[in-house]
Amino acid sequence: MKINYLMPTRILMGENCVFEQRVLISQLGKKALVITGKNSARASGAYDDTVKALEANGQEHVLYDQVMANPTDICVSEAGKLAGTSRCDFVLAIGGGSPMDAAKAAAILAINDISKEEMFRLSFSKALPLAVIPTTAGTGSETTPYSVLVDTTEEDGRTPRKSGPVKRSVNSPLIFPGFAFLDAKYMLDLNRNITVNTAIDALSHAMEGMLSIRSDYLSDTLARESIAMIMDCLEDLLSFPTNPSSFAGEKREKLLLASTIAGMVIAQTGTTAPHSMGYEFTLNWNTDHGRANGLLMKSFLLWCREKEQALYKTDSSFKPRIPRLCTVLGMDLEAFLDRVEELLGQREKAGEAEITAWSVKPMKNAANTYIVPNQQEIERIYRESVG
Amino acid sequence: MKINYLMPTRILMGENCVFEQRVLISQLGKKALVITGKNSARASGAYDDTVKALEANGQEHVLYDQVMANPTDICVSEAGKLAGTSRCDFVLAIGGGSPMDAAKAAAILAINDISKEEMFRLSFSKALPLAVIPTTAGTGSETTPYSVLVDTTEEDGRTPRKSGPVKRSVNSPLIFPGFAFLDAKYMLDLNRNITVNTAIDALSHAMEGMLSIRSDYLSDTLARESIAMIMDCLEDLLSFPTNPSSFAGEKREKLLLASTIAGMVIAQTGTTAPHSMGYEFTLNWNTDHGRANGLLMKSFLLWCREKEQALYKTDSSFKPRIPRLCTVLGMDLEAFLDRVEELLGQREKAGEAEITAWSVKPMKNAANTYIVPNQQEIERIYRESVG
Repeated sequence: MKINYLMPTRILMGENCVFEQRVLISQLGKKALVITGKNSARASGAYDDTVKALEANGQEHVLYDQVMANPTDICVSEAGKLAGTSRCDFVLAIGGGSPMDAAKAAAILAINDISKEEMFRLSFSKALPLAVIPTTAGTGSETTPYSVLVDTTEEDGRTPRKSGPVKRSVNSPLIFPGFAFLDAKYMLDLNRNITVNTAIDALSHAMEGMLSIRSDYLSDTLARESIAMIMDCLEDLLSFPTNPSSFAGEKREKLLLASTIAGMVIAQTGTTAPHSMGYEFTLNWNTDHGRANGLLMKSFLLWCREKEQALYKTDSSFKPRIPRLCTVLGMDLEAFLDRVEELLGQREKAGEAEITAWSVKPMKNAANTYIVPNQQEIERIYRESVG
Repeated sequence: MKINYLMPTRILMGENCVFEQRVLISQLGKKALVITGKNSARASGAYDDTVKALEANGQEHVLYDQVMANPTDICVSEAGKLAGTSRCDFVLAIGGGSPMDAAKAAAILAINDISKEEMFRLSFSKALPLAVIPTTAGTGSETTPYSVLVDTTEEDGRTPRKSGPVKRSVNSPLIFPGFAFLDAKYMLDLNRNITVNTAIDALSHAMEGMLSIRSDYLSDTLARESIAMIMDCLEDLLSFPTNPSSFAGEKREKLLLASTIAGMVIAQTGTTAPHSMGYEFTLNWNTDHGRANGLLMKSFLLWCREKEQALYKTDSSFKPRIPRLCTVLGMDLEAFLDRVEELLGQREKAGEAEITAWSVKPMKNAANTYIVPNQQEIERIYRESVG
């Protein structure tokens, strides 16, 4: 049995945990770079709570609130520079995956005089301490060592990339957040789309974790728990109320913790083919990341089952994973996929040219799948998903 | 929902992981204090593997191999002094709970000019980095921030304690091991008693974790997995073979990982009444720590069930925990306790005077139990267990 496990983030969960546990933030230094998107940090109340906690601690802060969805190399350079020139001691991110991922890159760039290429090549050995306050329940970034960015420029960091923007990631234990503060009250007003898409994101993290070549006993334990928690919220997601705030608070908490646990899973296993494939939807159509994973889920899982049944026929020592996944889901694959379909609604459609072009692109995470899809199989999954 | 989770140790598991993952040890510094008991580190082969890894890394080491079962304040002072005077950069423990717990204290005392009283009062803010290699599967010390020591002296660190030796613990995130190397091959020759007693120790950690006032969703997830893994080895433990090495290696791995996961549990929840109570057996009769917990398990769990049934009768919002535990055990409480009885064999017996004396002692961990036993109840549990 092989295990390689690391998840050093301290997780604090509970109503008002940011303010109540502010002593932990006080240990991080005198001055924070607070990094957020344009709206959700304020709308959720998380920014106010954070400022109150910092003030009570006698800590200063500077604010960078320009993180867009799918943050770019240019955005994180700006934020990093601001932290550096303002002599911040630590970075505090408030928001969904985008501000958290941007904060991780900013924590690196603030104290390393390196280019973004050097950052992607992991040519650094330190980063500012980091605390994060998620305002959505899906990304899991609060418990991962990953920062996923959109790289828009050539090596000089200015000229637009000739081949167009690509998603690239930084993967370093130095950017595990030191603290993750989980307060589901920040999610009470999230609308149906955000709630559903982020839940699908968390679910796909946990499921892909179980279908990774790096899955092990410990990651599977966490993945099963995460999946079970999300499935426990499935009916509520399917019947999402007109008024978001009447979605049960207890379910918000479950979705939040499930998402954090799914982050713990992919921190060990990485993600698999659907994550890389879905990036194309996001880059080309601006599709929400969670929804992109959801669009690929059906075809991918059916393909997995087909392949593993074939493999098992020629080698009875091969261990199929889909039946185990269905046990955790508590239903058969078709029943589950029907429900995902209902959550997704009308699917986006790609043209033949798009599908062909995407299918020949290098798919970094595909090689991390327990059965590695070849180019034809990737094309098939794209076609079945959005063809 | 409240969570307060931290477990920053990197866990490496697999055959030959010490040598194969030696690059991780190379990051810890130039010189190690290797700390072991008198026999098991060498007998298991773990010491040889460690020396090979250190030599391949070009790292020096000094050896402290005088850790006794239930290490004393005097022992850890010696080891800490040796690390300090030899200018060691890190501490590497090989053995069961005793060398690991001793190593944690030595890692503190090596670089803090403090007395042992100051150590127990947590008057320190740094410790040497620590890597651990367990050679038994029970303590869980590889993933906890605890060092449990036998305090034998008065404040001066020399004069024997007037009231006799006591177990005391240091609890600091600074002594979480940085790395835990889990290789079940070091356990292949462990005899029945050590195998069974350490398995009972791990099981009681996971079970007490579920019965702690600090248990939460995440600790319960880990506790359930740990218990399920140990229960999966129960029949093999009951029919332990005459030749230890014919005990299935796959079960050794399961017991080892279960014990590490149980360590992750108590790192969050702490232990409960039986752990404090069992210390008396160890201090007075030299009873193995795991067996001490096992001796108390039956009466403690039956008492818990009796109490929670009564509490539920007066308050239907009270959530009983024993039924949930039985679900994880996969059998009813009586059936489980019968098997524990079979594992324990003939019980030790205490005199009336002993039971009375022990029952009035302060029981630190008792207050951490989901239902706190009073003095009469502690006396009853002692009497039923060893009366």
